Amino acid sequence: MYEDFLREVRRLGNLGHAASVLRWDQEVVMPEEGTGARAEQISTLSTQMHELLTSERMGRWLEELEPRGRREAAVLREVGRRHERAVRVPERLVEEISRTASEAFPEWNRAKREDDFERFAPYLERLVELKRRYAGHVEPDVEPYEVLFQDFEPYLDLRDAEDLLEEMRRGLSPVVEEIGAGGAEPGSPLGEVPEERQMALVIRALELLGFDFARGRLDTSPHPFSTGNQFDARITTRVGSDPLDSLLSAVHEFGHALYTLGLPVDHYATPLGEPRELTVHESQSRLWENHVGRSLAFWRFFTPVLNETFGTDASPGEVYRGVNRVRPHPVRVESDELTYHLHVALRFEIERDLVAGEVEVDEVPGLWNDGMERYLGIRPESDAEGCLQDVHWSHGSFGYFPTYSLGSMMAAQLYASASEEIRGLDDIVERGEFETLSSWLREEVHRHGQVYTTDELVERATGAPLSSEPFLAYVGEKFGELYGF
Amino acid sequence: MYEDFLREVRRLGNLGHAASVLRWDQEVVMPEEGTGARAEQISTLSTQMHELLTSERMGRWLEELEPRGRREAAVLREVGRRHERAVRVPERLVEEISRTASEAFPEWNRAKREDDFERFAPYLERLVELKRRYAGHVEPDVEPYEVLFQDFEPYLDLRDAEDLLEEMRRGLSPVVEEIGAGGAEPGSPLGEVPEERQMALVIRALELLGFDFARGRLDTSPHPFSTGNQFDARITTRVGSDPLDSLLSAVHEFGHALYTLGLPVDHYATPLGEPRELTVHESQSRLWENHVGRSLAFWRFFTPVLNETFGTDASPGEVYRGVNRVRPHPVRVESDELTYHLHVALRFEIERDLVAGEVEVDEVPGLWNDGMERYLGIRPESDAEGCLQDVHWSHGSFGYFPTYSLGSMMAAQLYASASEEIRGLDDIVERGEFETLSSWLREEVHRHGQVYTTDELVERATGAPLSSEPFLAYVGEKFGELYGF
Repeated sequence: MYEDFLREVRRLGNLGHAASVLRWDQEVVMPEEGTGARAEQISTLSTQMHELLTSERMGRWLEELEPRGRREAAVLREVGRRHERAVRVPERLVEEISRTASEAFPEWNRAKREDDFERFAPYLERLVELKRRYAGHVEPDVEPYEVLFQDFEPYLDLRDAEDLLEEMRRGLSPVVEEIGAGGAEPGSPLGEVPEERQMALVIRALELLGFDFARGRLDTSPHPFSTGNQFDARITTRVGSDPLDSLLSAVHEFGHALYTLGLPVDHYATPLGEPRELTVHESQSRLWENHVGRSLAFWRFFTPVLNETFGTDASPGEVYRGVNRVRPHPVRVESDELTYHLHVALRFEIERDLVAGEVEVDEVPGLWNDGMERYLGIRPESDAEGCLQDVHWSHGSFGYFPTYSLGSMMAAQLYASASEEIRGLDDIVERGEFETLSSWLREEVHRHGQVYTTDELVERATGAPLSSEPFLAYVGEKFGELYGF
Repeated sequence: MYEDFLREVRRLGNLGHAASVLRWDQEVVMPEEGTGARAEQISTLSTQMHELLTSERMGRWLEELEPRGRREAAVLREVGRRHERAVRVPERLVEEISRTASEAFPEWNRAKREDDFERFAPYLERLVELKRRYAGHVEPDVEPYEVLFQDFEPYLDLRDAEDLLEEMRRGLSPVVEEIGAGGAEPGSPLGEVPEERQMALVIRALELLGFDFARGRLDTSPHPFSTGNQFDARITTRVGSDPLDSLLSAVHEFGHALYTLGLPVDHYATPLGEPRELTVHESQSRLWENHVGRSLAFWRFFTPVLNETFGTDASPGEVYRGVNRVRPHPVRVESDELTYHLHVALRFEIERDLVAGEVEVDEVPGLWNDGMERYLGIRPESDAEGCLQDVHWSHGSFGYFPTYSLGSMMAAQLYASASEEIRGLDDIVERGEFETLSSWLREEVHRHGQVYTTDELVERATGAPLSSEPFLAYVGEKFGELYGF
């Protein structure tokens, strides 16, 4: 009977993977007029998944099956959780949210382009209200924002997460102020680099990091992302003016892909072969982007490759300082490793109050600009560069942002443990022997799929619950040395 | 109630389109290790479609719904036909065929590479037997080959088709002999052309033919194909040694795509917005490839573009003769417009006898080689270039080949009608005003989706049932003039 259940679970998993291919295609290669038909295709897959997940048959299995061992228990826990949430929400509401989000996205896009918050406001209002109703169905006795947060991170307590984020914010603010007082850093040491060379460098970096192109792809897209499964993990990067940005975006996505490729192949399309939610996933990308890709050890290894590819003559120290420049920027995705989290903190505060009904939609632009001034000392010149900059709300995704910062904390904590357990990790990185670190992550994180919950996973890997300390210690050490405080 | 039915039909259609995207991805961009997971994804979509199609609910709708008007009747006819066929075949047999085909494909691939028919033989035997059983379930009282043929062309009678194919073969044989006696034609007037320039020419040709890149893509793949829907139609071509082959492959696929893009947008994902089966589809590709792309009028228009792109100095007449060279070749897809159909005739004879049990699998290589000698005067040097050359049988597709030649006949018949109805069509083509012809085809063929059956469609568009005469008249005129007989 468990086998029948598992077959159905695999069907669910395969429908999800099919939908991922359709989304990748839409972002990377689809002709522009394909949007409407693609939306129908993806929505059909969602409907099919919803029906499989909420079927009576599925309900019976989940009720009656007795797990044999930890793995079966994990599969039942994960599918059971999704089933519970799905059956509680009326199908009509799911469809309404999906339709409203489909309508909201192009309006957000246009509102951002035309710097016209008014255009997006009614959709945002509607989405907040619909998601509040959604949360009310899922868990009537829980604060709506918490329910929404659990869609992205089910296994960390929101109260704990709030404390961590607040510790992080309070730890970062003085550092950012201190650095700001120290004056501006010099610009990129590289100047203009043609796009082909930027891509050539990215490909070279991925090869050296150990990305398996027989099981993955690299493409370009306006917003870098990663998707796929253990047999086919795809990443994108953007090629724009700053070649180091395009490189580090790719290294970030490489971290996601490495997680995906490290999932057990035998459990493809079941929870044991799927990654944990956003915090863990983001920890993998941040670890590679920041703890490796922004380290001096990495640049001691990689600067010669960069110079060879670009025909430049930069020194490791120059590039290292270049990629660790701290400079408040109105746009999150243009921000450095530190000020980034103040963007997240602000978005988190506002969306939490929005969902709680303590703030009205038309107050958002003002709150955003005031918050930016308070946290970063800059005031966005437009809503386009202000509260309209990010896509998430137009998808109806509230509760997503905290996972960005939680992911960074987890990355720091994992890297600190790896540094303790792998003797001379810095030297190993400097020699370009990345497989040592990859193996450690595969062993501690990737291979477990969803066997352990987020909190179990971090505790098993690092011996402690998720904490802001390793992150703040890392920041203090690295930026203290760089900026001399 | 019809609306509920139609909603379910759209779900079916969307699942089919999703599967098409997955297949395109597999052929064009998927990393090599993705094959196994992709097979599971596609198989899951097939299962979902099978369940929707054979559900009791669907059965009730099809039984009880009274169509209001021709369009509803067509939708009910088409879905009803698929439903009938699907419910009659045991699910286990469907799965066994699918699994056997999945296993057979790589074996065929290897057998072809290693020229080892014995390796493929047991799979072919198994597939013939399974498909015979399949046919027995679908229509126990009909000859199995006919049932299989109807999977690809449900609306032409197999007896009629056989007569047409036989007329074609008998009409072509003396022409091919006559030309063969006339001595070899000169090779391509262009010499070697770098791949980028080949692609540049293909893109230029597609632009001039009116391919809408906002609703389509061009890529490369080892075997050119087309796929998609009215919002997103994709074609591929191969770039190899012969630039005219890569161009004409693209023009062929353009014909398929133009059909797809001409389907009514309001009926996306229902039979009214889907193309008719293979004969009609193939007629569209052949019409553009042969009646346009291999015409003197086209080359009078396009040779300057070609010379400009390649930096050559060819004359329209030279290129025209080049693309109409007749030369028996052991490989179908390398063959010219005439000898091509003798390949089809032979494959058709053999597979018909194979399915009828009148021929054993181990006789196939001998029959193939003898047939080649009889029809084309050449004997393949290996099974790889002989009976193993084509992929179709490894998919379990028997009854597919006749539609290639039937499509050519239909193309000739349609083009003859277009020439009668559009005054000075040759001059119009020579001026590069392809929209005139596209409009005619859209009006007569594309916009109807599956409203009319194949035989109705051809009769409405040309005033006569499908016939071999227009094709043979076209061949006689064109090749008579070219080769002087």
